[in-house]
Amino acid sequence: MTIDVKRLYEEDYIGKEIILQGWVRSHRKQKEYGFIDFYDGTCFKSIQIVYEKDIDSFDEIQKIKNGSSLEIEGLVVKSPSGGQDFEVKATKVILKGDSPEDYPIQPKRHTREFLREVAHLRPRTRLYQAVFRVRSVAAMAIHEYFQNNGYVYTHTPLITTADCEGSDQMFKLTTVDFDKLPLDEDGKFDATKDLFGKQVYVTGTGQLHGEAFATSFKKIYTFGPTFRTEKSNTKTHANEFWMIEPEIAFCDLEGLMDIEEEMLKYVVGRVLDRCPDEMQFFDKYVEEGLTDKLTKLINSEFVRIDYEEVITILNNADIKWDFEPKFGEDIAKEHEKYITEYFDSPVFITNWPKEIKPFYMKENPDGKTVASVDLEVPGAGELMGGSQREEDYDKLIARCKEMNIDMTTVDWYINLRKYGTCIHSGFGMGFERLLIYLTGVENIRDVIPFPRTPNNCDF
Amino acid sequence: MTIDVKRLYEEDYIGKEIILQGWVRSHRKQKEYGFIDFYDGTCFKSIQIVYEKDIDSFDEIQKIKNGSSLEIEGLVVKSPSGGQDFEVKATKVILKGDSPEDYPIQPKRHTREFLREVAHLRPRTRLYQAVFRVRSVAAMAIHEYFQNNGYVYTHTPLITTADCEGSDQMFKLTTVDFDKLPLDEDGKFDATKDLFGKQVYVTGTGQLHGEAFATSFKKIYTFGPTFRTEKSNTKTHANEFWMIEPEIAFCDLEGLMDIEEEMLKYVVGRVLDRCPDEMQFFDKYVEEGLTDKLTKLINSEFVRIDYEEVITILNNADIKWDFEPKFGEDIAKEHEKYITEYFDSPVFITNWPKEIKPFYMKENPDGKTVASVDLEVPGAGELMGGSQREEDYDKLIARCKEMNIDMTTVDWYINLRKYGTCIHSGFGMGFERLLIYLTGVENIRDVIPFPRTPNNCDF
Repeated sequence: MTIDVKRLYEEDYIGKEIILQGWVRSHRKQKEYGFIDFYDGTCFKSIQIVYEKDIDSFDEIQKIKNGSSLEIEGLVVKSPSGGQDFEVKATKVILKGDSPEDYPIQPKRHTREFLREVAHLRPRTRLYQAVFRVRSVAAMAIHEYFQNNGYVYTHTPLITTADCEGSDQMFKLTTVDFDKLPLDEDGKFDATKDLFGKQVYVTGTGQLHGEAFATSFKKIYTFGPTFRTEKSNTKTHANEFWMIEPEIAFCDLEGLMDIEEEMLKYVVGRVLDRCPDEMQFFDKYVEEGLTDKLTKLINSEFVRIDYEEVITILNNADIKWDFEPKFGEDIAKEHEKYITEYFDSPVFITNWPKEIKPFYMKENPDGKTVASVDLEVPGAGELMGGSQREEDYDKLIARCKEMNIDMTTVDWYINLRKYGTCIHSGFGMGFERLLIYLTGVENIRDVIPFPRTPNNCDF
Repeated sequence: MTIDVKRLYEEDYIGKEIILQGWVRSHRKQKEYGFIDFYDGTCFKSIQIVYEKDIDSFDEIQKIKNGSSLEIEGLVVKSPSGGQDFEVKATKVILKGDSPEDYPIQPKRHTREFLREVAHLRPRTRLYQAVFRVRSVAAMAIHEYFQNNGYVYTHTPLITTADCEGSDQMFKLTTVDFDKLPLDEDGKFDATKDLFGKQVYVTGTGQLHGEAFATSFKKIYTFGPTFRTEKSNTKTHANEFWMIEPEIAFCDLEGLMDIEEEMLKYVVGRVLDRCPDEMQFFDKYVEEGLTDKLTKLINSEFVRIDYEEVITILNNADIKWDFEPKFGEDIAKEHEKYITEYFDSPVFITNWPKEIKPFYMKENPDGKTVASVDLEVPGAGELMGGSQREEDYDKLIARCKEMNIDMTTVDWYINLRKYGTCIHSGFGMGFERLLIYLTGVENIRDVIPFPRTPNNCDF
């Protein structure tokens, strides 16, 4: 019976004949026998295959190299050594696909920089097996949380004519031949000749469209790829990443924070439950204390505090800041770090100055701040950003004018306020930022299967 | 207690005081009382709100218009009339957001063409409430199927330098100013000055990257947006749509068909289970016999037949074809229809002529056909397309040369065959095509929240 390696660890196969299909992680040869560290990707653990001198083609088997694909027939037996509970005593080892001596993935510690150069092979290493399985499990946990709570998964469009972020941060999408650009009478590029008859972009957010669906289904979420043209080569920026954007009608800022907190705890809990081997690996080799950090988060009650109060705390701190904390300005990484350490807890910072926030956020009665909230998490900084949305038609128009928003491309969005408008709120969470937090892996390039960053679109 | 309307239908609330928040679908006024057909989007069903003369602000309440948002306080009571089991006797009706007399969504039958013109409001209608909830439930069912069966959800990149489909079908992505194009010495567009230092596209498939992950995790799937530049205005084409692309190592064509069949039955079953009201609505107003059709599919065993045999059956049919069935050519819509009716079942058509299939499909020993399979479904035509992939390095190279594939951008893909290659297979399913089949709604524009088609990128 052909089975996944995963099943060996779920059921008792000792004494049974099985067939496995997978790859060689490493191969230790002795004169009279050999050991193959064998994996098939269905779980983090590999399985030890033992073969002895009396097996068919012993000499051929001894030549099998790391990375080769094999079919193994054998008997599951109790392991005589202490390293594992059981192993497979091979009765047949069939080479399916050979691998050369210079196979880039060898059973040793490769640098992450090197492994990025072989992005098509790096998911075969233990580190990336762990990272990308956690990525899958975390994604599913997010879907579970929202579906279990009655949210409608909404596929908002990626091709748009405008969005909240400003078109200078968006990729242009076109079907034209750059060497035969259609031009108008003035010799300028004529987008009316392009496929959509106008200039279109790839979006940086699904929020606006999400709001249309939230005012139809009450609770919706998006989960899809997002794009930014930022030309920055930092550990936390990529030009393509995935985002989750829930939007909830009849929900205010307090209600929004309840949802953010509950969702995050659910997802962290599911990953700890479902990926114990992977999390143990991260804890041991990537970030010491990771599981403690995450367990603590699940059991904590997140702090909720005003931006203004945060500025006061920062100014009262006995610290020489690189950036002076000042009302009206964004807070820096060093401030985020201090605040989460100060409270030793995740912190919701609420009611930010309106000048540094987008046009759609609801203005507070003070006229200075908006009903927005950032969630700061110990060791990772900002994990989510959200707000109550301006639900008043006139106030939203006024805000658009104040901020020079081109209203022609978002008139449908503004008009939502004319038809049964209601208080509503939403937030965005960068999926990769969550993964960095969950795995301890620091660089966004290492949590995306094939990362896209400036001057880097190989593979 | 504020609750979702959905909960009224899940638990017994009769005799309880509740608060509801949602919108007016219609409002019937009498002199002494009134009825509000009230929904909040959390389930397909609405709830009847009754108010009587003695309520506060009776005259104001009578002015409430369709589409307005309300907060209702009231008592759940057994319904005196036969139309429903219970209703809410309002003690308070609070207008939250007004709606004008000319609110586009009125309680009457609007044409789908008209509703596409108000794409931001159409999810409030019963048809689109049903369509987009089924979309969400079907998406979750797909995730469940693959996660329950040990597949790793893989986010393949959308930004690519090349893919299987040929770049003439792909959107170009750029950050340049079209009126200040960077040019090289020859006066041609210089893509090295663009963000990635080369010309990049938005992908039409995640398959190639999926294969890299399948040869690491054995079983993977993608589920994400996909793009085609096709300038065709048909009922089944959109420029942006969602696709599911599973890829499985150590799996041949027979195994692949097993998976396709099992997955489809699972998803159809989940939607029937979880969306009974929506499916009943489609059955009544959109496609008569829909639930019977879907139930039959779940209980049928799909036919598996060679392409060559299909051509013979078509040629033996006593029918005057618009397109003559001919070995070596694709089959037309009329043929698909005939074949599924001939067998009265979903039909897997296998082993297609290699000339009409992509370079990566595995050539059969006959030298004429490839190990590919299309699933044809009664009433919807082709639902999935898949194949065994060429796992042999030399054969793949030969095929690339034969078909003039630019190997420089896919060298990493080809090289996967050098490192422990194995038999592997995968398929693609257009998510919207599945939705058209599940809902009976015929036009792809009506199953995508904000559809993108040539010259149409409003909203």
